[in-house]
Amino acid sequence: MTKTITTERQNRAANELRPLQIIPHFLPQADGSALICCGHTKVICTATIDENVPLFLKDTGRGWITAEYGMLPASANGRMRREAVAGKQSGRTQEIQRIIGRSLRAVIDMEKLGSRQILIDCDVIQADGGTRTASINGAYVALCLAINKLLNSGKISENPIREAVAAISVGIVNNTLFLDLDYPEDSGCEADINIVMSASQKLIEIQGTAEGSPFSVQQLTDLITLAQRGIGQIMQEQQKAIAASTTYLKNKF
Amino acid sequence: MTKTITTERQNRAANELRPLQIIPHFLPQADGSALICCGHTKVICTATIDENVPLFLKDTGRGWITAEYGMLPASANGRMRREAVAGKQSGRTQEIQRIIGRSLRAVIDMEKLGSRQILIDCDVIQADGGTRTASINGAYVALCLAINKLLNSGKISENPIREAVAAISVGIVNNTLFLDLDYPEDSGCEADINIVMSASQKLIEIQGTAEGSPFSVQQLTDLITLAQRGIGQIMQEQQKAIAASTTYLKNKF
Amino acid sequence: MTKTITTERQNRAANELRPLQIIPHFLPQADGSALICCGHTKVICTATIDENVPLFLKDTGRGWITAEYGMLPASANGRMRREAVAGKQSGRTQEIQRIIGRSLRAVIDMEKLGSRQILIDCDVIQADGGTRTASINGAYVALCLAINKLLNSGKISENPIREAVAAISVGIVNNTLFLDLDYPEDSGCEADINIVMSASQKLIEIQGTAEGSPFSVQQLTDLITLAQRGIGQIMQEQQKAIAASTTYLKNKF
Amino acid sequence: MTKTITTERQNRAANELRPLQIIPHFLPQADGSALICCGHTKVICTATIDENVPLFLKDTGRGWITAEYGMLPASANGRMRREAVAGKQSGRTQEIQRIIGRSLRAVIDMEKLGSRQILIDCDVIQADGGTRTASINGAYVALCLAINKLLNSGKISENPIREAVAAISVGIVNNTLFLDLDYPEDSGCEADINIVMSASQKLIEIQGTAEGSPFSVQQLTDLITLAQRGIGQIMQEQQKAIAASTTYLKNKF
Amino acid sequence: MTKTITTERQNRAANELRPLQIIPHFLPQADGSALICCGHTKVICTATIDENVPLFLKDTGRGWITAEYGMLPASANGRMRREAVAGKQSGRTQEIQRIIGRSLRAVIDMEKLGSRQILIDCDVIQADGGTRTASINGAYVALCLAINKLLNSGKISENPIREAVAAISVGIVNNTLFLDLDYPEDSGCEADINIVMSASQKLIEIQGTAEGSPFSVQQLTDLITLAQRGIGQIMQEQQKAIAASTTYLKNKF
Amino acid sequence: MTKTITTERQNRAANELRPLQIIPHFLPQADGSALICCGHTKVICTATIDENVPLFLKDTGRGWITAEYGMLPASANGRMRREAVAGKQSGRTQEIQRIIGRSLRAVIDMEKLGSRQILIDCDVIQADGGTRTASINGAYVALCLAINKLLNSGKISENPIREAVAAISVGIVNNTLFLDLDYPEDSGCEADINIVMSASQKLIEIQGTAEGSPFSVQQLTDLITLAQRGIGQIMQEQQKAIAASTTYLKNKF
Repeated sequence: MTKTITTERQNRAANELRPLQIIPHFLPQADGSALICCGHTKVICTATIDENVPLFLKDTGRGWITAEYGMLPASANGRMRREAVAGKQSGRTQEIQRIIGRSLRAVIDMEKLGSRQILIDCDVIQADGGTRTASINGAYVALCLAINKLLNSGKISENPIREAVAAISVGIVNNTLFLDLDYPEDSGCEADINIVMSASQKLIEIQGTAEGSPFSVQQLTDLITLAQRGIGQIMQEQQKAIAASTTYLKNKF
Repeated sequence: MTKTITTERQNRAANELRPLQIIPHFLPQADGSALICCGHTKVICTATIDENVPLFLKDTGRGWITAEYGMLPASANGRMRREAVAGKQSGRTQEIQRIIGRSLRAVIDMEKLGSRQILIDCDVIQADGGTRTASINGAYVALCLAINKLLNSGKISENPIREAVAAISVGIVNNTLFLDLDYPEDSGCEADINIVMSASQKLIEIQGTAEGSPFSVQQLTDLITLAQRGIGQIMQEQQKAIAASTTYLKNKF
Repeated sequence: MTKTITTERQNRAANELRPLQIIPHFLPQADGSALICCGHTKVICTATIDENVPLFLKDTGRGWITAEYGMLPASANGRMRREAVAGKQSGRTQEIQRIIGRSLRAVIDMEKLGSRQILIDCDVIQADGGTRTASINGAYVALCLAINKLLNSGKISENPIREAVAAISVGIVNNTLFLDLDYPEDSGCEADINIVMSASQKLIEIQGTAEGSPFSVQQLTDLITLAQRGIGQIMQEQQKAIAASTTYLKNKF
Repeated sequence: MTKTITTERQNRAANELRPLQIIPHFLPQADGSALICCGHTKVICTATIDENVPLFLKDTGRGWITAEYGMLPASANGRMRREAVAGKQSGRTQEIQRIIGRSLRAVIDMEKLGSRQILIDCDVIQADGGTRTASINGAYVALCLAINKLLNSGKISENPIREAVAAISVGIVNNTLFLDLDYPEDSGCEADINIVMSASQKLIEIQGTAEGSPFSVQQLTDLITLAQRGIGQIMQEQQKAIAASTTYLKNKF
Repeated sequence: MTKTITTERQNRAANELRPLQIIPHFLPQADGSALICCGHTKVICTATIDENVPLFLKDTGRGWITAEYGMLPASANGRMRREAVAGKQSGRTQEIQRIIGRSLRAVIDMEKLGSRQILIDCDVIQADGGTRTASINGAYVALCLAINKLLNSGKISENPIREAVAAISVGIVNNTLFLDLDYPEDSGCEADINIVMSASQKLIEIQGTAEGSPFSVQQLTDLITLAQRGIGQIMQEQQKAIAASTTYLKNKF
Repeated sequence: MTKTITTERQNRAANELRPLQIIPHFLPQADGSALICCGHTKVICTATIDENVPLFLKDTGRGWITAEYGMLPASANGRMRREAVAGKQSGRTQEIQRIIGRSLRAVIDMEKLGSRQILIDCDVIQADGGTRTASINGAYVALCLAINKLLNSGKISENPIREAVAAISVGIVNNTLFLDLDYPEDSGCEADINIVMSASQKLIEIQGTAEGSPFSVQQLTDLITLAQRGIGQIMQEQQKAIAASTTYLKNKF
């Protein structure tokens, strides 16, 4: 059996999130932006409105959300090769940017967004585990700010966001269930699951991998329960950041 | 609520697999190979033994399994662009070959495999949904045949395979839970989950996506139960193919 | 002088083709397809109708045939690097797909084909020498099936095929003239010539190379005579496969 | 004649720098790092120590400094294409990373650095003109911190830095000489010169371009005088940041 | 202090150009062309008229000049890798072709050129230092010949060339100022400056680099004076070649 | 029947070569070089000695010859895209450089060449048909000069050249057999054959293509006879150039 989920780890309980901070409008030149810090993991998320749509949506009146992801070469311990120099994005990079895009699209009404797309960029400046979930969480805030801009300018009349979306990783480390794995935990864990949920507590994405040691269906259920708790807390922080963004803009310029 | 899982679809019950056939030693020049046919989906899987290991395993005495995936341009309706002409593998291709590799590595004891790697190739010649799960299922057979070759030649003395691995997709179509989605079902479904399990009924990979419509934790649990049933049947077919392979070799050459 | 062409080699006479089998409609989702097996060499050939033409033919009313070629990584002894991973097609690959395209175009009346192109894909699943000639032979069958589809659907009213085309390799091994070289013969031969001919016994392509040992004009003439014999036999098999294809379709679906 | 250099522009005199802030140890996982903000232009600079040297320096006992440069896609108004997606670095990017590398190498004694290289990364998170000069200025600070780390750890015994280096742009806008051009000034200027100088007031790099309107030698001399003034002020800020870095480290961890 | 500029070097004074020869219409199939030989450095320069303009100039009525640069693999001592094989242009190549383009654009009235672009190609067949300045000098001649063709054909009515442009390198070798560095001088010099000037003696581009040893502002001024002298002589040779080009055409075809 | 081969074309008989000129040591920095002019077609050929061999020849004591081919963008009417900008060599380019390499290797004794390779570069500066055969003819001269250098320096003691090699194109234009097609003839011809022969009148390569109109075996034989005549004349010019090369070197430096 898996142990209870209260086992201690470095400075926080097994079911505790890392300190979370979301700074809206971090890059004011973008249509929407946020810096998200989850412990030592820091990601700059931006949303750019593009009044063109991909070819396959031409003349449908529907919009689209797409995402790109990158890491600064020195964002992790031991410099990574710059992908622009390598000449291509790695499989991992592409996998992550695909899940960011799908997660955001799942909560958007593309009819209401209208014939335009929003391009999300998530660039990791410091990496300590959980960069894909932090990217989704920060990207949602950047997306909301860009959509607010569309609403404020009258380009769209109804909010296309159906409900909030947030993501967190959970995993099994030394047979204990852990919430919000940092890099050392992630590297050493037996199983690692990224969960993306909506505000209505439904699953949008679940990506679990157990290269180390397969896990039972019961463990999966327990991990999802653990994730739900973290996702609720993250959504509160997202809302605070979105609410604060009006004030930010007033003060900043 | 989700309906019961017995709802009818084209020619088979909602909880029924497509006709499954695995032909071992399909490409006799490879160290291990199988053609797997799941309904209209057909994948050629091969395993090639390479006595070198990746750099990061040098001098560790441990081995590795890695996988590549491709589709013939005309394998799907409407010809796809050949990736060798495009000059790169798509994000989808890379995502799939990464999950194939991780799934197989999860059931292999790398110490027993010794300082060598096995390269898996999964090439789809006809695609009708479920190519990544068919690839895992066929690749496991090809891998077993290659390992048998290592055992027979005395290069390794103990079987490094801990237990069998198989995969299947499940999904929600019109609010009904379906096993083993074909392409029309996959395109139209609200949620789509690929599940990789071990013979001991533990989860190795779970990749669920609900771009269409988020699903509840209860639905997820029901879908996993459905998947377990299918995976059990697939493992029987894998075993038959592996058992038949000795005879095949005798007759063929 | 070169010896007579009846010298024995493994299981067949010097002037004998390898066992030849052509299975039409091998990939029924394609507009035309065939699996061709020449001894151990096996190639999947497909033809896809594309109602667009290349830019240089825009508004001319004329059509086009183009071809692509690939090999499964494990198709040959000793796995080859996947070209999609390498990021480009090799010089050899490009040379082969160019000759396939030219050979087919030589027998097609582009006016009668009308403003559309047919894309040929030849993917080698098992390679034992002669993959380029097998590709041409199988591609011709796939092309005929696609054209039959155009004729049956009324999209074109006249058959654009002027005459049949087939190809074979001939070479000099140990000073003996050989028909239809397999891989060991091809690697060890002094000179290697690929010949593409029309049903009217005219030359469409001739590609001869003598990196090992230059050959005389007399030898060339003898080799062409040898090739003509093989090409006649191949054309009979092509016709059988095309004739059989109607029955195939009736039975298969 | 060119006007005197005191002509007013938005919020600052023609000979005045934009507000300049350098935050050392911005990315503590790197061996050296700094965030530099020149007005709205913000660049993250890192220095990574690599104990290997490029091939051409093997067995010479000498070290090397090399630099890479990138921009976040949303760093400028109107999102730029991500270079990792484009598959290559633009000519402009390569030009900038070459000048950063040369500028830093000009002030380093490669014998004293010893057989290792330091990799500089400059990633622009917000761009408002002058990103190449800001990169050089921030990279010098990051480089000093990395070298301090080498000195503190005893890996090198003598400081390889001969003297400080800093850079600034000057230009002619509406016939007036301007220091430290922001993006609107840079786009509209007649001539634009980037000047890199050493603490001893010598020129290390000068890159002037007058696509708009050629300039006289007298104007060039006046612009260099103007640049010298700005470079002196920048070097003071660099020194403050380097001095502050010890305290930073104490407080931060 | 720097020594006087008359110090001797191999076969010529420090302030002397290498023998300069410009052969107009070297490649008569191009709209304009010249072979330029500066000592052992030889560059083929061509100008091709393209009646399309880049997207950003569409419907503006204005034209454009753009340049590409290459080196034959065997043009320098020790064969260089062919960039078409490497799959990309080096940073140095891109830097050079950008400066050629900017230098020529600086002397052209784009309104008078009209809605067309001229593509400049500079291909080095023998390299002995100064290839970028030789390219600019030869490209100017090729450009003039192409523009003459436009004028002669009546496609444009006014000459868009505002004034001549030429370029030369100067540098400090052993503390002496040198004009027109050849490769051994360039490799060994302390500082190296490329200067592009107009016929009115104004600066168009200045690119100075002192990776070896920073130089003073006074030295820079002296070097520019030295360059002006060389540029005057080059412009005479350019004019001779342009004047001779009519005769060439008469005799050649 | 095909007409006799004496039919007139522009300025020369159907069986006449274009004016042929070979200038040895055209690029004296290369180990061997020649400029070859066949009518308006001009190719710079160089040979570079590399004391390393490809991996597959390591420790065999045998050498290798390899070739690369390129065209200046403005070498043909209507500027071609620069392959270094396109990021890859076209299929045509690769096909040509492969035939150049094979043709030269066919006449070299790799044991006598010893453990080194010779890299051939053929760069077309003006293209008017027949660039691949001109490349082979000029490359042979460059190769001989490089080998003479090896012999003169004592690096090899025996000449590895078995016999001379030369190439020419022949074709059928308006049912007449033509020698040495220029570009207009090549574009309009019914069939086009490139023939590479040794001094002993044996075939090394034959590449015939009849996309326009298939040709008979008799026509092929006649075309080869025609080619032999041309090749004999080319070999005389090659010998003159090689003989002249000693004098060239004496006078030139």
